[in-house]
Amino acid sequence: MATVKYVEEAGASDKIKEIYGEIKKMFGIPFVPNLFKAMANHPAYLETTWLRFKAIMGTGKLDPKTKQVIALAVSATNNCEYCINAHTAALKGMGFGDQEITELMAVVDMFNGFNKFLDGLRVESDLKP
Amino acid sequence: MATVKYVEEAGASDKIKEIYGEIKKMFGIPFVPNLFKAMANHPAYLETTWLRFKAIMGTGKLDPKTKQVIALAVSATNNCEYCINAHTAALKGMGFGDQEITELMAVVDMFNGFNKFLDGLRVESDLKP
Amino acid sequence: MATVKYVEEAGASDKIKEIYGEIKKMFGIPFVPNLFKAMANHPAYLETTWLRFKAIMGTGKLDPKTKQVIALAVSATNNCEYCINAHTAALKGMGFGDQEITELMAVVDMFNGFNKFLDGLRVESDLKP
Amino acid sequence: MATVKYVEEAGASDKIKEIYGEIKKMFGIPFVPNLFKAMANHPAYLETTWLRFKAIMGTGKLDPKTKQVIALAVSATNNCEYCINAHTAALKGMGFGDQEITELMAVVDMFNGFNKFLDGLRVESDLKP
Amino acid sequence: MATVKYVEEAGASDKIKEIYGEIKKMFGIPFVPNLFKAMANHPAYLETTWLRFKAIMGTGKLDPKTKQVIALAVSATNNCEYCINAHTAALKGMGFGDQEITELMAVVDMFNGFNKFLDGLRVESDLKP
Amino acid sequence: MATVKYVEEAGASDKIKEIYGEIKKMFGIPFVPNLFKAMANHPAYLETTWLRFKAIMGTGKLDPKTKQVIALAVSATNNCEYCINAHTAALKGMGFGDQEITELMAVVDMFNGFNKFLDGLRVESDLKP
Repeated sequence: MATVKYVEEAGASDKIKEIYGEIKKMFGIPFVPNLFKAMANHPAYLETTWLRFKAIMGTGKLDPKTKQVIALAVSATNNCEYCINAHTAALKGMGFGDQEITELMAVVDMFNGFNKFLDGLRVESDLKP
Repeated sequence: MATVKYVEEAGASDKIKEIYGEIKKMFGIPFVPNLFKAMANHPAYLETTWLRFKAIMGTGKLDPKTKQVIALAVSATNNCEYCINAHTAALKGMGFGDQEITELMAVVDMFNGFNKFLDGLRVESDLKP
Repeated sequence: MATVKYVEEAGASDKIKEIYGEIKKMFGIPFVPNLFKAMANHPAYLETTWLRFKAIMGTGKLDPKTKQVIALAVSATNNCEYCINAHTAALKGMGFGDQEITELMAVVDMFNGFNKFLDGLRVESDLKP
Repeated sequence: MATVKYVEEAGASDKIKEIYGEIKKMFGIPFVPNLFKAMANHPAYLETTWLRFKAIMGTGKLDPKTKQVIALAVSATNNCEYCINAHTAALKGMGFGDQEITELMAVVDMFNGFNKFLDGLRVESDLKP
Repeated sequence: MATVKYVEEAGASDKIKEIYGEIKKMFGIPFVPNLFKAMANHPAYLETTWLRFKAIMGTGKLDPKTKQVIALAVSATNNCEYCINAHTAALKGMGFGDQEITELMAVVDMFNGFNKFLDGLRVESDLKP
Repeated sequence: MATVKYVEEAGASDKIKEIYGEIKKMFGIPFVPNLFKAMANHPAYLETTWLRFKAIMGTGKLDPKTKQVIALAVSATNNCEYCINAHTAALKGMGFGDQEITELMAVVDMFNGFNKFLDGLRVESDLKP
């Protein structure tokens, strides 16, 4: 159970209701995810986080699928169940099947391992940008 | 300084020399990265790791650029200097500029943050695959 | 299910019973938390850990609320369900409401993100103590 | 060395210059920290991150010192050198001496340890909010 | 629920069936662990991972019990429930009781704590190999 | 540079000097490691941490070499340079050569990878203690 209440649409301020409306529209779903309903306990945080979310996910040169791939790789490395489920769902909606998801995790597996091997032996960096 | 010696080509076994040759060819560089020269202290580990590296990075449906993106996202999340340098270099060689690299890290930033917010409040998963 | 047994008061040694008594008194609860009942499988570890717990949480210049805030920030970053629950409960007992807990996690969110952005781009430290 | 260029004030857009001005004013320093100069490679990210930074650090019920304490506890847990230096400097500017910084890290030490002990034995949560 | 299907023996290719047979034999169990049935969504990954698993766990100078101890220490530090359960079971099968498992976690506790204390204060390395 | 001063023997209290003496004797070295000289900024923390260190490393059923192996596996997973150096040195002093250290890191590599693969796909635990 979450340790704070979720701010439901019914009792929310007009500003929060407006953001909730945008969220449902952008995600194409009929409900507001718990992530945002928890953030709404601190309205200024929700508002600026949503602006930033739109800037990071919606502008720039990287395509949306690549951004979801990054999100899933990060969430797997951190073992965040909520985000793993959400970004796997997003990628499946973009055409990823079990093979692509497994391939992604094979890369996550390999480099999490290499990261620790390299750090654990203090191997000097010799491939640089 | 690395805590173990690097196995240099000069004194390596024929099997290791063969792997070193393949590595230089695949990476298109005239030297063997320290990563593999450290692994060579345990030859069976180097040999099977190289086979697996080729399978993970060279087969399947995800394209090589996407795999480098995953590698960099994982390595940034783990703060592995060697791998961050190596995969940033790889992505720059594939056409990523400062904007793309910064965009990638903006996504890494946002989801590392969301991961901890969600876990820290025990928010229930409601977006599932 | 825990992977080791909990050492219950009934069958515990006198020394462990004494520590259990102190724990219940300090926490103001009628039971011994599982954390300590698991530690009691290694009595010298429980005994010295309890001495250290009292020194870290009960002496020095930082106030008890600040120490609980640190404990929750650390536990959220590590995604430790037991500790997140325990320290959220402690802070609620000290007057934190949903807004304060959410604010705390907003800070946890932001700096977990910045940490990875900074490391992921190898940004040089220019703000130093 | 950072893997992307820093966007210096001289060549920056008017919008970025404005943000840089606000940053110097808020931090009370005569230069723009590298953190923000790296973010400026993706202007929409810098702009919304700065808005969010001001909301998280400048509004709400938790006091500024508590927020710096959280930032340092998170950064120590993640081993982010840039942020550790920056937030230690901020706390020293707010009156923390070597004793308070060491006390803070003693709490970070203890709960990082407890987190892993509890997870490593799958100890069931019995202290709940 | 896993986010990808498990590849069951019934419908698997001959190569995968052969690997599954080896796995059951080496682990001395009548079923194939989910770990490998998930990997089988990417056959080349399963095949090379299994070769590498045999090299890492089955060759070299460190004894099998020490390797299980390392696996459990890593898995506790990462909070991976699957691996914690699996390696605790393996160690119990090799003679570890509640005391040894608790002792192992006491060491995990202490050094996870020291790691963060040292990094959080940027303490200079003075004990070197 | 460390963010707090080290408490040198010359100016230390009698109690701290006594602990420093024990540390040098137990480690068999003519100086006090920086770890403890930083802790001494909070004397009660140093004193109880040292008691606990002796209990965890010096009592119980696991042998000293196994405890150093755990310490190194944890420190590699956390990328703590100070502890990696210290525990590699300790293991080399106990007879580990480059092969054993590399083998240890191969196991660290593999299970860090498996941990993230398993978590990233939410694979259900089927090997339990």
